[in-house]
Amino acid sequence: MENVAIIGASMTQFGQRDSWVRELLAEAGTACLDDAGVAPDAVEHLYVSNMASGEFEGQTGVPNALAHDLSAVPAYTARIDQTSSSGSAGVYHAWQSVASGSSDMTLLVGGEKMTHKTTAEATDVIASLTHPVEYKQGVTLPSFAGLTARLYLDTYDAPRESLGKVAVKNHKNGVDNPKAQFQKEVDLETVLESPIVADPLRLYDFCPITDGSAALMFCPESVAKEYADDYVLVSGVGGATDTHVVHERADPTTMRGVVESSDQAYEMSGYGPDDIDVAELHDMFTILEFLQSEDLGFFEKGEGWKAVEEGVTDRDGELPINTSGGLKSKGHPLGASGVAQAVEIYEQLQGEAGPRQVDAEVGLTCNVGGFGNCVITTILEQA
Amino acid sequence: MENVAIIGASMTQFGQRDSWVRELLAEAGTACLDDAGVAPDAVEHLYVSNMASGEFEGQTGVPNALAHDLSAVPAYTARIDQTSSSGSAGVYHAWQSVASGSSDMTLLVGGEKMTHKTTAEATDVIASLTHPVEYKQGVTLPSFAGLTARLYLDTYDAPRESLGKVAVKNHKNGVDNPKAQFQKEVDLETVLESPIVADPLRLYDFCPITDGSAALMFCPESVAKEYADDYVLVSGVGGATDTHVVHERADPTTMRGVVESSDQAYEMSGYGPDDIDVAELHDMFTILEFLQSEDLGFFEKGEGWKAVEEGVTDRDGELPINTSGGLKSKGHPLGASGVAQAVEIYEQLQGEAGPRQVDAEVGLTCNVGGFGNCVITTILEQA
Repeated sequence: MENVAIIGASMTQFGQRDSWVRELLAEAGTACLDDAGVAPDAVEHLYVSNMASGEFEGQTGVPNALAHDLSAVPAYTARIDQTSSSGSAGVYHAWQSVASGSSDMTLLVGGEKMTHKTTAEATDVIASLTHPVEYKQGVTLPSFAGLTARLYLDTYDAPRESLGKVAVKNHKNGVDNPKAQFQKEVDLETVLESPIVADPLRLYDFCPITDGSAALMFCPESVAKEYADDYVLVSGVGGATDTHVVHERADPTTMRGVVESSDQAYEMSGYGPDDIDVAELHDMFTILEFLQSEDLGFFEKGEGWKAVEEGVTDRDGELPINTSGGLKSKGHPLGASGVAQAVEIYEQLQGEAGPRQVDAEVGLTCNVGGFGNCVITTILEQA
Repeated sequence: MENVAIIGASMTQFGQRDSWVRELLAEAGTACLDDAGVAPDAVEHLYVSNMASGEFEGQTGVPNALAHDLSAVPAYTARIDQTSSSGSAGVYHAWQSVASGSSDMTLLVGGEKMTHKTTAEATDVIASLTHPVEYKQGVTLPSFAGLTARLYLDTYDAPRESLGKVAVKNHKNGVDNPKAQFQKEVDLETVLESPIVADPLRLYDFCPITDGSAALMFCPESVAKEYADDYVLVSGVGGATDTHVVHERADPTTMRGVVESSDQAYEMSGYGPDDIDVAELHDMFTILEFLQSEDLGFFEKGEGWKAVEEGVTDRDGELPINTSGGLKSKGHPLGASGVAQAVEIYEQLQGEAGPRQVDAEVGLTCNVGGFGNCVITTILEQA
């Protein structure tokens, strides 16, 4: 089977946008066509990663609208939804479309428009992904995060400050990302004294609500050579669920979806955790960066917090994590986030990350749906 | 690349159900596991075809819930949405998952729960898939159907009665489908005198609003041989969009998505229209059966109505169409319909269709998203 390549990437400004999701998708899609040098009529499949355009905007059928807006008709289109991991699910299905021979040119565009809703309204849409029993008890994702953070700190003797340092690091990275929602540093004191949301987590332990879109162009490696000298290969991809009822998990500080999906991606790629030079993890809540960095095999269980304390995951550390600013600083437009993670890795591997650039040949993304209810891990490398 | 096989199929009772979509999906999924003889932990990918569980029920993350309900964790899950063609889009992505080597056992379950909403509410959710300009003018899918039917009758000198005969035929077929929403014959007079909905179309020219679910099990042919002596192969599949704005189409009596998607499916399979022994078409409106039967190449343009008049598409005709009863009689739970079309073809090819059985080695399904905004055609054959 031929290798699958990525030959173009784009993302819109993330933040509070005066555009509907359809416009955001068209903006990122157009920019990706330009970046890849691909004509709209060369696109054979067009996938949209999006969780809830119907709930947020009363607008469905968005992929068909996008085919129109990009002049990509008669490309086949579909919407891929895997809640907050819709973006990487889109990467998985885009990869499959090329690897199966169904498409020689697949454009993936992820996006979400959320900020026109109140925080309560947006949280309610997101919370509808949880088990009805949990949902009806009012257990939203932030409350799971607070409970898990408390357990993690207690179990592994981690200081509360270490969680805050995730926010500080990712905000620092975001300063150099002109597309990030927040481009400002925060100091540890600000994080630790921000309002409590779900004890012990405070406002700065959470990602914001965001509008935005991101896009990637996939094709067989033989086709990639016609378009570009440098491109990126999808070396590994895997996806896995964990229990839908979070309280059924034997150890809530381990995310089975991360373990299983990364096992698949490592096996497919032939790489292991030690081979990863840069990673984008799903820091919807600061605690999630610890859990993922451990369950991906980067650090021993219970020691992810030490890596942050020691600067290992800083931009100039041994394994930079969330050089883009992460969901924390860059923002989290649900369907866009997994795509935007891969956009950052693509730019790092292509040497296009500007002031955020690190030395990297192999990168990884980990995109978490729900509270780890489904997780997708991808591994990308320089061709 | 290895052939992709279908080794199990199921569908729930269609109609007005006292179950939420999650329960309907679990019912069809469990029955499909049983039919295929596959243990839940052998399922590697689990796809849900569903358009609007969030809009209809305020419930998202349904694929993760289903993995829980079927004991299929840690299978990778995703929701595939392509509006009213979500079911066949699911078939396409399930095929890709196996053909790409990502999964050796993919369970696809399509479903929708709609009847707890009023017709106006359900129509409003469905209408949100159209272009906003059309939507805001109140042009819903039934009105497109009325306009197209008028144009077709005028252009091709077809009698109004021929449309009514589609309803009569499909209701007659539905009598022998115990899972169909309507299991009763209707006579032509009843159809022609039913209330006008969108002139010239009347109530009996439209499919009902339906609850239901259907499922299929996909695997490589080498794996299929371990589970079954008889199975079905996916020989061809294709998908294509048409203009998102319906009034931009040069000839509204031709559905470009049908033409393009079937061209792809025919080319992939090596079969042509003359090789098809039985077909399930998307008769959401009676007029659509004419358009598809022509654009698939079964009949000359403007002559699909004659085939119905002459009995060619009857169960005992030369090319039986909608032996299941079609959407018209069986019902149309959006995300389930494309899957249920393939379930009927599967049963016909396996000789399991009981009183509906026809002589068939190769079958076809055509599933229409929106008003042809995106169409998926699949070709299945006996192994």
